[in-house]
Amino acid sequence: MRQTPVFPVLARFAGLALLFLVVLEVQGQTDPLPSWNDGAARKAIVDFVQATTTQGSPQFVPPAERIATFDQDGTLWVEKPMYTQVLYCLDRVPALVKARPELANVEPFTTVLSGDRAAISRLPLEDLEKILVATLTGVSVDEFKTQAGRWLEMARDPRWKRPYTELTYLPMQEVLEYLRANAFKTFIVTGGGQDFVRLYGERVYGVPPEQVVGTAGVTRYGYDKAGKPFLFKEPKLLLNDNDAGKPEGIHLMIGRRPIAAFGNSTGDRDMLEYTRAGHGARLAMIVLHDDAVREYAYGPAQGLPDSKVGTFTKALYDEARKVGWPVVSMKTDWKRIFAWEE
Amino acid sequence: MRQTPVFPVLARFAGLALLFLVVLEVQGQTDPLPSWNDGAARKAIVDFVQATTTQGSPQFVPPAERIATFDQDGTLWVEKPMYTQVLYCLDRVPALVKARPELANVEPFTTVLSGDRAAISRLPLEDLEKILVATLTGVSVDEFKTQAGRWLEMARDPRWKRPYTELTYLPMQEVLEYLRANAFKTFIVTGGGQDFVRLYGERVYGVPPEQVVGTAGVTRYGYDKAGKPFLFKEPKLLLNDNDAGKPEGIHLMIGRRPIAAFGNSTGDRDMLEYTRAGHGARLAMIVLHDDAVREYAYGPAQGLPDSKVGTFTKALYDEARKVGWPVVSMKTDWKRIFAWEE
Repeated sequence: MRQTPVFPVLARFAGLALLFLVVLEVQGQTDPLPSWNDGAARKAIVDFVQATTTQGSPQFVPPAERIATFDQDGTLWVEKPMYTQVLYCLDRVPALVKARPELANVEPFTTVLSGDRAAISRLPLEDLEKILVATLTGVSVDEFKTQAGRWLEMARDPRWKRPYTELTYLPMQEVLEYLRANAFKTFIVTGGGQDFVRLYGERVYGVPPEQVVGTAGVTRYGYDKAGKPFLFKEPKLLLNDNDAGKPEGIHLMIGRRPIAAFGNSTGDRDMLEYTRAGHGARLAMIVLHDDAVREYAYGPAQGLPDSKVGTFTKALYDEARKVGWPVVSMKTDWKRIFAWEE
Repeated sequence: MRQTPVFPVLARFAGLALLFLVVLEVQGQTDPLPSWNDGAARKAIVDFVQATTTQGSPQFVPPAERIATFDQDGTLWVEKPMYTQVLYCLDRVPALVKARPELANVEPFTTVLSGDRAAISRLPLEDLEKILVATLTGVSVDEFKTQAGRWLEMARDPRWKRPYTELTYLPMQEVLEYLRANAFKTFIVTGGGQDFVRLYGERVYGVPPEQVVGTAGVTRYGYDKAGKPFLFKEPKLLLNDNDAGKPEGIHLMIGRRPIAAFGNSTGDRDMLEYTRAGHGARLAMIVLHDDAVREYAYGPAQGLPDSKVGTFTKALYDEARKVGWPVVSMKTDWKRIFAWEE
C-alpha cells in the first residue's frame, strides 16, 4: 500500500472504532441470551460463565480447560415423535429391502414396509435395534454420508413440515455461542449415531465433526474393487454413548472432564454427575419438556408416564432438585423456542 | 477511559504499528521452518501449505477442512532405544509387584525385576504386551495420570540424560506451528497409549488431549468406596491405533480425512495411504532415521535390518518413492534436530 496523506486520519478513525467495540464488549451491552427469560436457569448460566472466565475470580478456569458437553436429542433439538435418526432408519428400509429382497418377509422389516404407523410405533426396542443395525451399517462411510445427507435435505418433520435440522432450540444455540464467545470448546455428546450427527453438527450448531461424540460402531479399513482404500461400517458396536457410556465416551474422545454439561434424560445422568464431581465451578443442567403448546410436554414432572423417547424420569427430576442441577423449563425459561417462530 | 488530547496520536501510532505487523506477516519475512535445510522435503511442505491456504488457488482448502495428523514415536520424538511408554511400563513393574507379590515369580515380571537389560531387550512381543496390560490398566484414570505424570518428570533418557519430553524434533515442532499458523488443526495419531500421550501433548506439542488419538482401552464408569464417581481402566483393548487402526481411529475420533499426514514406520502406512486417497492437494511424508551421529540410524535405507522398534521397512521405502510420499532425511533435511543442541 502506498502511503498517502489521508492514511494517518484513517488509522485514527480505525483506532477509535476499535476502542468503541472493545468498550461495548467489556460492558456486555449485547445480551448473549436474548431468548431466555430472567430466572434461575438463565442466572445459573450467566453466573457460571462469569465465575469461570473473569480474571482474578476464585473460580477462574484457564481457556484450555473450558470444556462443555451437550446431549443432542431433546437438549439441542426436538426428539418427538421419535429420534430423527430412527426416522431416517425407518425411511431407509425400502431401499434396504430392494438391495436385500429376502428381508421383505422378515420381521420387523415387514411391519416397517406396511407403513402402518401405529404398528411401527409399537415395535419393541430389540426390533428397532435390528433396523438401526441393518440401515446404519454394511455400507462404506462415504456411501452412508451420501445416503443420510440426501435424506436430511429432503425429509420434513410431520408437525411443522420443516427440515429436521431447523428444529433446534434457539435458546440452546445461544448458550453454545455464548460459551464459545467465552473461549469454551463445545462438544456434542449424543446417544445418537456419531456418524449421523457429524453430518450436520458443524452447519447446525457450529460443532465440527471432531467435537461430536456419539454411539459409534467399528469400521474396517479395506479396498474397493478399483483398489481404492475405504472405510466400511461393520455391524459391531464400539461405544454405546448412553448412561455410563457418556463419561466413558467423553474420556475416550475428549480426554478431560467437562466443566459444564447439558442433558434432558436419564441417558445423560452419568454425564451430569461426572461433570459435577470435578473440582471447582461446575454447571450441570437439564432441559424439561413442559410446553405442550409450543413443543411437547412429557415426563413425570407433568405427571405423564415415562416414554420410550426422552426418559426424564421422576427419579432424575428428584435427584436434580436434591443435588442442585438447575432444571430448565421450556415453558417458563424460554421466550422463544425456534428461530423461525413468529 | 477519559479522553485526553494525546489519545488520537496514540491511536494513530497503534494503527501504523498494526499495519506494519500485517505487512510483515503477509510478506512472510519470518522463516517458518528455520531448522530445515533447503531441499525437496522442505519445499513439499511449503508448496503444500501455500497451495491449500492461498485464496483463489485451485487447491484452496477451507480452514475447517485443514486437518493434519502426526504419528508420535519416531516422527515427533525419539523412539530409541525403546518406546518411551514401554520404558515407563518396565519402570513400573517393581511397584506393581509390590502391590501384587504373586507376580514376582511369574514371567516376564521375573526377568524385568532382575534388571538384566540384555534379557529384557530380548523379551518377545507377547511378553511386552503382558507388561503393558499389567501396568497401564487396573487403575483409575486419575491414579494413572498421577503415576505416569510423576515418572515423566523424574525419568531421564539413557543417552542425553534429559527428560523424554525434551527429545522432540525441533523441525517437526516447526511444522506443527507452521500448520497451525495457517489455520490447520493438528492431531497426534499414535500407536502409543492415548492416555499416556495426552499427559504431555499440550505442553510439549501444543496439541490438547482431545486432539490426541492413540491406542485406547475400555474404561468403566463406577464409584469408589466414598461414593465418588470415577473411571477405571479395564484390561480390554478398544482401539489398536496402528496400521489399519490409524485410519479407523481417525474416523472414530476426528471424523474426517486428514489432508496432511506424517509418519515414520509401517504402522503409519495406512494413515498415509488414506490421507493421500482423498481429493485435492495432499501431503503424506515419512521421516527417515539416517543420522547415527546426531540421533540414530536404522531401517533398510541404511542397509540395516528391520528392527522391532520403528519398522521403516524396505517395502515402505520403495512404496514411498513409487507413490510420491516425500521422505525426510534427518541427516540432510534437518539443520538441527533438538532445540537444546549447540
